[in-house]
Amino acid sequence: MPNTFGKLFSISTWGESHGPAVGVVIDGCPPGLPLSEADIQVELDRRRPGQSDLVTPRKEADRVEILAGVFEGRTTGVPISLLVRNSDARPGAYDEMREKFRPSHADFTYQAKYGLRDHRGGGRSSARETIGRVAAGAVAKKLLAAGGPVEIRAYVSRVQDIGLSGLGEFPTAAAVEATPVRCPDAAVAAAMIKRIEDVRAAGDSVGGVVTCRVRGLPAGLGEPVFDRLEADLAKAMLSLPASKGFEIGSGYAGTFLRGSEHNDAFVPKAEGVGTATNRSGGVQGGISNGEEIYFTVAFKPVATVMKPQATVDLAGHATELTGRGRHDPCVLPRAVPIVEAMTALVLVDHWMRNAAQTHVFKF
Amino acid sequence: MPNTFGKLFSISTWGESHGPAVGVVIDGCPPGLPLSEADIQVELDRRRPGQSDLVTPRKEADRVEILAGVFEGRTTGVPISLLVRNSDARPGAYDEMREKFRPSHADFTYQAKYGLRDHRGGGRSSARETIGRVAAGAVAKKLLAAGGPVEIRAYVSRVQDIGLSGLGEFPTAAAVEATPVRCPDAAVAAAMIKRIEDVRAAGDSVGGVVTCRVRGLPAGLGEPVFDRLEADLAKAMLSLPASKGFEIGSGYAGTFLRGSEHNDAFVPKAEGVGTATNRSGGVQGGISNGEEIYFTVAFKPVATVMKPQATVDLAGHATELTGRGRHDPCVLPRAVPIVEAMTALVLVDHWMRNAAQTHVFKF
Amino acid sequence: MPNTFGKLFSISTWGESHGPAVGVVIDGCPPGLPLSEADIQVELDRRRPGQSDLVTPRKEADRVEILAGVFEGRTTGVPISLLVRNSDARPGAYDEMREKFRPSHADFTYQAKYGLRDHRGGGRSSARETIGRVAAGAVAKKLLAAGGPVEIRAYVSRVQDIGLSGLGEFPTAAAVEATPVRCPDAAVAAAMIKRIEDVRAAGDSVGGVVTCRVRGLPAGLGEPVFDRLEADLAKAMLSLPASKGFEIGSGYAGTFLRGSEHNDAFVPKAEGVGTATNRSGGVQGGISNGEEIYFTVAFKPVATVMKPQATVDLAGHATELTGRGRHDPCVLPRAVPIVEAMTALVLVDHWMRNAAQTHVFKF
Amino acid sequence: MPNTFGKLFSISTWGESHGPAVGVVIDGCPPGLPLSEADIQVELDRRRPGQSDLVTPRKEADRVEILAGVFEGRTTGVPISLLVRNSDARPGAYDEMREKFRPSHADFTYQAKYGLRDHRGGGRSSARETIGRVAAGAVAKKLLAAGGPVEIRAYVSRVQDIGLSGLGEFPTAAAVEATPVRCPDAAVAAAMIKRIEDVRAAGDSVGGVVTCRVRGLPAGLGEPVFDRLEADLAKAMLSLPASKGFEIGSGYAGTFLRGSEHNDAFVPKAEGVGTATNRSGGVQGGISNGEEIYFTVAFKPVATVMKPQATVDLAGHATELTGRGRHDPCVLPRAVPIVEAMTALVLVDHWMRNAAQTHVFKF
Repeated sequence: MPNTFGKLFSISTWGESHGPAVGVVIDGCPPGLPLSEADIQVELDRRRPGQSDLVTPRKEADRVEILAGVFEGRTTGVPISLLVRNSDARPGAYDEMREKFRPSHADFTYQAKYGLRDHRGGGRSSARETIGRVAAGAVAKKLLAAGGPVEIRAYVSRVQDIGLSGLGEFPTAAAVEATPVRCPDAAVAAAMIKRIEDVRAAGDSVGGVVTCRVRGLPAGLGEPVFDRLEADLAKAMLSLPASKGFEIGSGYAGTFLRGSEHNDAFVPKAEGVGTATNRSGGVQGGISNGEEIYFTVAFKPVATVMKPQATVDLAGHATELTGRGRHDPCVLPRAVPIVEAMTALVLVDHWMRNAAQTHVFKF
Repeated sequence: MPNTFGKLFSISTWGESHGPAVGVVIDGCPPGLPLSEADIQVELDRRRPGQSDLVTPRKEADRVEILAGVFEGRTTGVPISLLVRNSDARPGAYDEMREKFRPSHADFTYQAKYGLRDHRGGGRSSARETIGRVAAGAVAKKLLAAGGPVEIRAYVSRVQDIGLSGLGEFPTAAAVEATPVRCPDAAVAAAMIKRIEDVRAAGDSVGGVVTCRVRGLPAGLGEPVFDRLEADLAKAMLSLPASKGFEIGSGYAGTFLRGSEHNDAFVPKAEGVGTATNRSGGVQGGISNGEEIYFTVAFKPVATVMKPQATVDLAGHATELTGRGRHDPCVLPRAVPIVEAMTALVLVDHWMRNAAQTHVFKF
Repeated sequence: MPNTFGKLFSISTWGESHGPAVGVVIDGCPPGLPLSEADIQVELDRRRPGQSDLVTPRKEADRVEILAGVFEGRTTGVPISLLVRNSDARPGAYDEMREKFRPSHADFTYQAKYGLRDHRGGGRSSARETIGRVAAGAVAKKLLAAGGPVEIRAYVSRVQDIGLSGLGEFPTAAAVEATPVRCPDAAVAAAMIKRIEDVRAAGDSVGGVVTCRVRGLPAGLGEPVFDRLEADLAKAMLSLPASKGFEIGSGYAGTFLRGSEHNDAFVPKAEGVGTATNRSGGVQGGISNGEEIYFTVAFKPVATVMKPQATVDLAGHATELTGRGRHDPCVLPRAVPIVEAMTALVLVDHWMRNAAQTHVFKF
Repeated sequence: MPNTFGKLFSISTWGESHGPAVGVVIDGCPPGLPLSEADIQVELDRRRPGQSDLVTPRKEADRVEILAGVFEGRTTGVPISLLVRNSDARPGAYDEMREKFRPSHADFTYQAKYGLRDHRGGGRSSARETIGRVAAGAVAKKLLAAGGPVEIRAYVSRVQDIGLSGLGEFPTAAAVEATPVRCPDAAVAAAMIKRIEDVRAAGDSVGGVVTCRVRGLPAGLGEPVFDRLEADLAKAMLSLPASKGFEIGSGYAGTFLRGSEHNDAFVPKAEGVGTATNRSGGVQGGISNGEEIYFTVAFKPVATVMKPQATVDLAGHATELTGRGRHDPCVLPRAVPIVEAMTALVLVDHWMRNAAQTHVFKF
């Protein structure tokens, strides 16, 4: 099931950019969780296009409807079905793409794989698919909050060469949401905004890095071998449109150190065993150790640019294509809630898996 | 099943460092593939400890036995069971680890998760677990060779700050195997070897980067949304011991470019549609586009160093631990066949999944 | 994912009896299949309540909407999302069930498992859940038709003690649909109808047996060991509401024979190897042998009866409950399209799995 | 993974009748369970050939080795690998089967599916595959014992037409093991034994029915819709060699009753809500209700008989085949521990799944 993610708390997304709707089915949600459409809407609003001048002006209210799985304000343990109507579809704007492959988009590969495709707005490869993820992630976040004081905070840490230096303090949600670029440092955020505006004016686009941090997670989550916590996070992040890289803890930078410099010494802490440093990024051997988890995700510059580009058509002949219409010069601010959602999904799934194996039968 | 990888061509590894044996069960291998123990042994020998002065001197013949799934030299379509005995176990050497957690190892997290652990040599978290992956990968490589002219080539591209510049030509297997460090550039390899020897002499360890490249893969492999080819590769790589990062195509470096600089223009090619550049790294929208796939994996410096380190014991008290005995100063050369094996496993699985969905029923 | 069925052609159903809608997401459908809402509606109409006096008079148009996965009349290879609105909901009619458990319904077990439940019309345990199965089964049937001359025919073979003797000829669809009871023998059908009418008049209900037969299936479908074709069919059938038994081929009757009487001799046939008799029911060792597959499913009498019954309330006190409102005296006629749908889903999934393993890589 | 069973407590069996060994890998076993080879051996001895004159005289010690997953007498939470060597292999005895298909065996279907097969003793289709199931089931039984006072008791309830009448008391293990036929009623057992001896003398074989009962199971196990407890039990049972039918609770007999006769009234009981009768067989809506679970499995007569039978050869020509050598006239006594093992596996898996969903996050 290539459109399903998670083993015990699993989500299945469906829908195309210019179909009637997009949605998600959540299977495995524990019963009794208080859940309303407003709980989900708040996260969808963070992901929604048209929030600011920095992102795509597509106008979508993205109102979520709960079609199943909630009764009298609480989840019942059966599948939760969520639906969001597509309203601002402009199929005519995509006529040219029926015949021509947009460079660095999924047009060509879908055609190669399936032999046909819904070309309107990228069809299933559209970022609108992530609506289902964010909606499901809102439910996962509520579960985590019930599990303990777990906080997930993603933010834009770099736009092209403009970025934060070092990890710094765990930022507040308010600091992240204070600017439309979702970088918690006001000065850096201002520079990023300036860059994005310049790039937009040039009809071009930029990429960068999102950092995500988790604190309050207990030790013991994650599985040895294949389903390591960092492996499932990596998969989650590389499943996002436009992502090209992932690193956890010291990541690529850590490869310049020697082992004696890199190791995290264990030290006694008030609440048990901890580490003096945290180059491991909160995971060792695939399992959380109780320290803060932090990782980054690289997002390439958006493929749609307002400039003529060389490409080929369905018949394989050279041609040219110019991006038109709505243009999102930088995907990063809207990626922030999506990264948080995917993180929450991974954590809840591992939480349930860990509990099933280690907390049920006692000897 | 946290110890299983792959949906249609799936492998399940088992075994601990100091148990009687390690092994793997392969389920879903097509029938009729010629397969002998020698086919598998050649890859295990590349992964084996004690190959050179650069890696751990643990002496293991790592002879593979085929216990099931092969009849008269061909696979039969039922599970293939492979077993490798552990011979050079030195359980006594690990007595100190029963009580003390090695820094940046999985000792503490296994204890936290399971409440008990096999402390001898790291138990299940030992790199010996990867024997099963390499053995299964050898079978996957044979399948890919039957599927077409697919070549997978991994190599060490950087040790600390000593590395190759640029991607360069697709290296030959001979060039990679020419030196024990498995870097295809002789001069860079010599510098890497010098560095590793120096570090070993200092009782320390180093990390670096492995690059992996695939050519000859047809367009159309990979799934949209969650099971993207790059997502499954990322998961595979982050499931390897000591890995901390993954990037595909332009990766983190690509985030410094503008969209107009980054996009890969489609161009007509002799064999169909291709791209003029390949910053995408051979995947677009999660699906292979027929161009070369390339990605890197960051490996942190090995955690075991021959120096005293601060840590805590089972009771949570501060103590000190000094690595002793066999010491692997750089995991990278032995990671090369493991990275290739995991890549082969991902590709075969997606090949079969793709065929099932798109080649079986025709309209 | 307890609400998902199938590995390569997988369906996920969602929705409750008195929620806004029920639906299904199909993942893994091959691209290019011509598919319209009419293709699906024809099967939903066979399952729909209110078709005749023999079944529940609940009035539901059960109009299906395709929300995703189809473009310009063909499937695109991405998830197909199907939705059916619930229109004739009468929540008030179920107020009594909020506090009282209906005997032999799922009210008590849902409450015990989840701690709360949507009591209206059985919520998720309602037979309306099978709408998604039938809708997905309609797609599976179209795929099978594309795969070859595969025919699936289910029919009511017994109502209480009124039944067909022997397997007889493979019945035509017309013969099955000729009467509302869906028994292909007109005389037996008349007796069944009389019985059901009598039972309805008495406010009671009856059960019986549905037989399902498949011809035209090639040899080689099904997996050894756990995912045997008959094992997956058994699971599919026992997952249906009210089903209590399954037998394939000679079934329970075959246990009275000796091996020498029961064995199916192989004989040369025009199209290859066949069997002289077919007590195996078309499967041997879990794999289809090219002969007709036939099996039966036992359905208990419907639990809702128009008579006072002893039960307990939420507080555990003894009380009494009388069925009211809409009453379906015999589930069997409507079970026929559901049994066919589940059979089609199992066969398509195994077809794809078999092809992936045995037809892709050649040596 | 067609050779894997279970989602959270999952087993993967491997091995052929005349290969070097058979085995199983258990993934997901909770850590800390005391486990020795003796715990497993006791169940393997119940399944072992050569226990009595009633079953196959193949001589196999079937000694189990634990290769991984247990440390100092306790499970560690990582995969448990179990291996049993094949010792009494007589490959020469099967030369004729290389060319000829045994009637009602899996020879033909394996050949049709895979294009080649290990013909020696049925290869993977041999009942020796069930060794892995019984070994894993022994672990599952130990877990259930830790979970509460759960008892699983299977026994032979009918051989051909010689059977027990009614369900009767829950039999003791001693009563079941008192005779080699494993029927708890001494008089009926004697008649069964006489029948099996007569049939053996005639070179023929017989089938019958195994009944399995479970008491002490809490309410709430099982999932709505597809993974109903009875659906997973049905799959487990139909995955056994020679099984042709399954019924739970009133089964096929219940279809002769009216709803008012069949329903199980809820009644207050000392320990909570119970039912006055138990035609449901302990499951309602797919979920356990706390009452006794009981079901039956139909096993056809063994296909190997010591008589000449018509068949065809690999070339498709008519020929004749006579069973030779070791002959098991009745599979039922040895099926008893296998049925118990599969039941234990289903129950543990659902126990863990249920706990993960309903006991972890609390609101």
